[in-house]
Amino acid sequence: MTTAQTRESLSGLEFFRRLLNGEADPPPMLQLMGIRITEVDFGRVVFEAVADERFYNGMGVAHGGFAATLLDTALGCAINTAMPAGRRFTTLELSVNLTRPLTREAGTLRCEAKIVHVGGRVATSEGRITDHNGKLYAHGTTTCIVVERPRGSLEP
Amino acid sequence: MTTAQTRESLSGLEFFRRLLNGEADPPPMLQLMGIRITEVDFGRVVFEAVADERFYNGMGVAHGGFAATLLDTALGCAINTAMPAGRRFTTLELSVNLTRPLTREAGTLRCEAKIVHVGGRVATSEGRITDHNGKLYAHGTTTCIVVERPRGSLEP
Amino acid sequence: MTTAQTRESLSGLEFFRRLLNGEADPPPMLQLMGIRITEVDFGRVVFEAVADERFYNGMGVAHGGFAATLLDTALGCAINTAMPAGRRFTTLELSVNLTRPLTREAGTLRCEAKIVHVGGRVATSEGRITDHNGKLYAHGTTTCIVVERPRGSLEP
Amino acid sequence: MTTAQTRESLSGLEFFRRLLNGEADPPPMLQLMGIRITEVDFGRVVFEAVADERFYNGMGVAHGGFAATLLDTALGCAINTAMPAGRRFTTLELSVNLTRPLTREAGTLRCEAKIVHVGGRVATSEGRITDHNGKLYAHGTTTCIVVERPRGSLEP
Repeated sequence: MTTAQTRESLSGLEFFRRLLNGEADPPPMLQLMGIRITEVDFGRVVFEAVADERFYNGMGVAHGGFAATLLDTALGCAINTAMPAGRRFTTLELSVNLTRPLTREAGTLRCEAKIVHVGGRVATSEGRITDHNGKLYAHGTTTCIVVERPRGSLEP
Repeated sequence: MTTAQTRESLSGLEFFRRLLNGEADPPPMLQLMGIRITEVDFGRVVFEAVADERFYNGMGVAHGGFAATLLDTALGCAINTAMPAGRRFTTLELSVNLTRPLTREAGTLRCEAKIVHVGGRVATSEGRITDHNGKLYAHGTTTCIVVERPRGSLEP
Repeated sequence: MTTAQTRESLSGLEFFRRLLNGEADPPPMLQLMGIRITEVDFGRVVFEAVADERFYNGMGVAHGGFAATLLDTALGCAINTAMPAGRRFTTLELSVNLTRPLTREAGTLRCEAKIVHVGGRVATSEGRITDHNGKLYAHGTTTCIVVERPRGSLEP
Repeated sequence: MTTAQTRESLSGLEFFRRLLNGEADPPPMLQLMGIRITEVDFGRVVFEAVADERFYNGMGVAHGGFAATLLDTALGCAINTAMPAGRRFTTLELSVNLTRPLTREAGTLRCEAKIVHVGGRVATSEGRITDHNGKLYAHGTTTCIVVERPRGSLEP
């Protein structure tokens, strides 16, 4: 069973709890970026990662894509913790503010995201990347839209 | 000489031309994500990449962080093609719109970015990710700010 | 017939052409802000306005809301020029970059917006505010979503 | 003394407290839009307004510019409550999410904004528009930049 199939048969909260307990494989991008889930509740998640040198840009600090990936992960998952099996939201728009340069010296980073709004078709969430002292490195907001099933699908 | 040091001694346009000609090593994040520069002019760059399965999220399509990283790369570099040696801009804010799901079936993706505004302290640019048929998958805008030298720095 | 009713029975392009020709009343907010339509095509509109002192903030320049209103007007209308009667998009998300302070000395401002993407449920557009010399003051992007009819509605 | 001059000689917090106590005139745009300050602390402000019909767009609900103006007001002021006399931040970038249509039936709206990050050159804040039941209509984030004095200025 692929990660995508497992995700389809579970509620978002159940899926992320399995991920947290090591009972489901992290999606490939999270493995590549070393992004780990550390907390999950209804409407709220925390992920962790380190701004290793392999994520650096040409200026000797982490590429903006590192923070964007960490935030997009947490922002989307926060919304999906509130979704029943078979109902998922996908990112439509992502806004990221980078407030401080990120390097591996910042240590293990914590990215917490929370739902702001969940409607029938659209949901939004906000999140922050901080170090172990609570120092803020980046924050962001996402707008997600419900994933429609392909026409003709027999599933509920 | 590190990539960051090479970048410091050259104008942005010279640096990106060396990258294009294989005379400078791509920054680590671009190597990790398989992002290659293919065109560079004053105020405009094109990068390419493939939405390989290693960039997938839990839904079987590329993680939003893949498009965000590709866009952030092109958006920031477009601005820096207009900068003399020792003057660089860094991302302050990034907005990404994801208009279609990205998978490896989309083939080699092209991300073109152009400067919108360059001022003394702030610059903005916009970019798009398309496939070889010109089909649009994502677009974005960045706000960059000039990198200030540390106080007391003796460098030019 | 209210503006909203007139808008409902016409395609977007027809409605904005009537507005251009003075055959329909501008919506109240456009009257309040002195925003006038000056060009309209399929997928593209131009609006004009002046950053009068009545739009100033506490710093003696136009409030950011002035540029945001002008951009939101043009960005949303650009998308709706492509919509048939009874099908409309509404703003879900708006991003605005303010690149220069706006005052009435800038004269009549031109805000041109164009469609970037139109899908079944979501559409995006981008626009710029310039003066008569082409100097850029602000630019922005919007994400719009189709307006769903109320459940049980008998209308087509 | 103009509003802008008064603002220059006071700290942000003092200026907004005068505004709250009716000892300073609201800036023109706030008068035009009926936006009133109702609470102010270091790093936090609340403004109120009503989505009157004069702010409607062609679809019979408040124009996106209404929420954008209310949010931009609160987001910028929240940052400036933390600034000493003569130091001000101005909006560089504004992102707005509109989560529900706004009409005058929503009654008096409350827009609360709080600082997220304040650095030497850049500051960010976030805010929400809710009704008296706490129902969310819009939220947003701003990136502000410090206003530089004209070159040659003798002031501190």
